[in-house]
Amino acid sequence: MNRGVIDDEDKTAAIIVAGGAGTRMEGTTPKQFRMLGGVPVLMRTIAVFERSLSIDNIIIVVPEAERDGLFRGDRARYRPAKPGDVRAGGATRRDSVAAGLEALDDSIGIVAVHDGARPLVTVAVIDRCVEEARRCGAAVVGVPVTDTLKVIDANRNIIDTADRESLWHVQTPQVFRRDIIVKAYERALRDGRYGTDDATLVERIGVPVTMVDGSRDNIKITYEEDILIAEALLAARSGTVKEN
Amino acid sequence: MNRGVIDDEDKTAAIIVAGGAGTRMEGTTPKQFRMLGGVPVLMRTIAVFERSLSIDNIIIVVPEAERDGLFRGDRARYRPAKPGDVRAGGATRRDSVAAGLEALDDSIGIVAVHDGARPLVTVAVIDRCVEEARRCGAAVVGVPVTDTLKVIDANRNIIDTADRESLWHVQTPQVFRRDIIVKAYERALRDGRYGTDDATLVERIGVPVTMVDGSRDNIKITYEEDILIAEALLAARSGTVKEN
Repeated sequence: MNRGVIDDEDKTAAIIVAGGAGTRMEGTTPKQFRMLGGVPVLMRTIAVFERSLSIDNIIIVVPEAERDGLFRGDRARYRPAKPGDVRAGGATRRDSVAAGLEALDDSIGIVAVHDGARPLVTVAVIDRCVEEARRCGAAVVGVPVTDTLKVIDANRNIIDTADRESLWHVQTPQVFRRDIIVKAYERALRDGRYGTDDATLVERIGVPVTMVDGSRDNIKITYEEDILIAEALLAARSGTVKEN
Repeated sequence: MNRGVIDDEDKTAAIIVAGGAGTRMEGTTPKQFRMLGGVPVLMRTIAVFERSLSIDNIIIVVPEAERDGLFRGDRARYRPAKPGDVRAGGATRRDSVAAGLEALDDSIGIVAVHDGARPLVTVAVIDRCVEEARRCGAAVVGVPVTDTLKVIDANRNIIDTADRESLWHVQTPQVFRRDIIVKAYERALRDGRYGTDDATLVERIGVPVTMVDGSRDNIKITYEEDILIAEALLAARSGTVKEN
């Protein structure tokens, strides 16, 4: 690995990050274990990566307390058949990604980092992003900003209307050549500078990152109502939407 | 009017803009007339302005074909008791706002423009925005951007991560002193330059606009799945959300 080039034999691992305690949501169940259409959010997420032909290995990062029992009992049916591991995450998202990077085996040349709390990602989106990362080294999925965005100052006065033509909401998966994401994390750790997503760290080491079309319903389950919104989006997807 | 100062006797009119044909959504019913929790979207929107003590008059702008029959039959119960008018909109949103401005009577000193397709606005949000506009002349509601946003170039390469600290999604209501919004529209018409919201036109004539806290669920019904999302948000609001 770390050769800086990719050949067809390099395999792709997904690192599914679900280490958080979900503190922004009420209730005691962390958001990644809440039920969505009868299936825990994280298990739904894992299933999409299990189905994607672009993904060879699956590394799942969960809170320490969840690690051993992740696929016990009723959840046994959700254990992926693909090779991989379940690792304990750290206090922050970046610690969890780092724990996932340490779990990669030698065959892995491409790494797809994905939020466990984005269960509505599709196989098509994953495949598109992996393909682009294989081509150029670093690719993330997102959707164009459609809202009008304002730039405000410290006094809440609007000082500008953002040029939304060039702005995209970034989502996950974020897919990188292994040497690139490893180097980006080493640099971030050394400098003590992180960001709100992995691409920021990669951008900072000077590697170009390409934006790939995601889907608008690839939402992150963060707030209480997001579970209901995700249920609604699932219903829309399965064709049960009625004309009013 | 048009004195450039506000006194306590100046009344406030809401202009509820629902002139669009809702072409982004499937089906033949324009989005503002789709059913949401058993009530047409627009009627739900009107009801919130009817309840707000900050709003004195209600002007509703709808497609020409809907104008005469808006409150006929089953919809009679939704007719606001507050004084106002129903006007026919034009081809674009700005034409509809302009039609609303023409319908204002002499008592009106403050104008609150609101999207008919934002039925989940609350009385608290309306009141907060009107109060601020009375104080400073121009105020809009919005919520801070929480997603990571990327700036991309024409080749889809990420060239920057946006500083989301200063970025807000702008919503409606957008509330202005009458002379300010009238002047902004006159200028836009003269110059043939419009924008994606009314605040942009006001910013352009050099009037400071203040951002007021909106609410995250004050969504605009645009796409098919937005109806389902709005139903989910309504359910969350009425306390029928169950812990999973």
